[in-house]
Amino acid sequence: MEDRKSLKIDVALVHYPVINRAGDIIGSAVTNLDLHDIARAGFTYGIDTYWVVVPDEQQQEVAGKIVAHWTEGYGGRVNPHRRDALSLIRICSTLDEVIDGMTAKWGARPFVLATCARPGQSSIEYAAVRNMAAEEKQLLLLFGTAWGLTPEILLRADGILPPLKGAGEYNHLSVRSAVSIILDRILAPAADR
Amino acid sequence: MEDRKSLKIDVALVHYPVINRAGDIIGSAVTNLDLHDIARAGFTYGIDTYWVVVPDEQQQEVAGKIVAHWTEGYGGRVNPHRRDALSLIRICSTLDEVIDGMTAKWGARPFVLATCARPGQSSIEYAAVRNMAAEEKQLLLLFGTAWGLTPEILLRADGILPPLKGAGEYNHLSVRSAVSIILDRILAPAADR
Repeated sequence: MEDRKSLKIDVALVHYPVINRAGDIIGSAVTNLDLHDIARAGFTYGIDTYWVVVPDEQQQEVAGKIVAHWTEGYGGRVNPHRRDALSLIRICSTLDEVIDGMTAKWGARPFVLATCARPGQSSIEYAAVRNMAAEEKQLLLLFGTAWGLTPEILLRADGILPPLKGAGEYNHLSVRSAVSIILDRILAPAADR
Repeated sequence: MEDRKSLKIDVALVHYPVINRAGDIIGSAVTNLDLHDIARAGFTYGIDTYWVVVPDEQQQEVAGKIVAHWTEGYGGRVNPHRRDALSLIRICSTLDEVIDGMTAKWGARPFVLATCARPGQSSIEYAAVRNMAAEEKQLLLLFGTAWGLTPEILLRADGILPPLKGAGEYNHLSVRSAVSIILDRILAPAADR
């Protein structure tokens, strides 16, 4: 794998529990490009692990096959950049597994940052998170698929980042875009921002 | 469509001419998520038009069917946010068509900004482009699919943006991520950055 110093920052993409358009709690399906795009952004910005949280066993199997194709199979031999990126992925069943795994590897519970596209939920600014990252604080960035993380998960987080805003009220970004932008806001070299 | 003030900024995603891994000039295929993700990011950040540059007629037909499903068909009735985003898309054959179309709608040739993931090519900083956007200068942001824009297109541009850098030398982002991050760097409200 490409030589790389990773930060004490992980990303988790939650497929269950998330909410649907109506606000009901659902489980979503793993998608190929959520694995690829977020792994590539994560590797670029120096994250340590990209957790794919999906309790459904069949979905875990699908995700595992995709990852293995790139980390152990033909894909990675043809495209080592993609192998490097997808090697960040760990598939697990629950948010508790993520937090326990991070606590075990770094000896301290991570500061859990949730993301939410709805206004009025945020409790921490990007500048504050940039400072925490610069101080090498262990951070977990949580993203929801479908219509986003459940209120219960938002309540469990230590902080909620503000929604990404552009020109107006419309902020219906893909989760792939949201992860990319938030990693850039938190981790891009200051001179480039 | 959702009420929205758009900027004098367009994005173009080039499928031909681009380069492949070996540096040969090729044409790439349209992908569904390049249409969706970039349209959603473009609508969020206030761009006026998202040009999909693809000369192949069959590829144009595929892209046109996807767009029509969301702008005129069932998709848009179920998900009006997606209809709004995909309504930004214009399918065309060449970069000249993009530049002529922008010149016609705004009465002046746009300042053409190319993007390139390779180091040593850049000629303009993000801060300078932010200032141009704030001064309502007409801008065209050019992105390449596959392994990126050809040297010939880079030479035609008025400026080349620096590659997106994270923690090290690895910067193999998807074009969907790169567009999202660059729109955020140029167009996010200053207070949010």
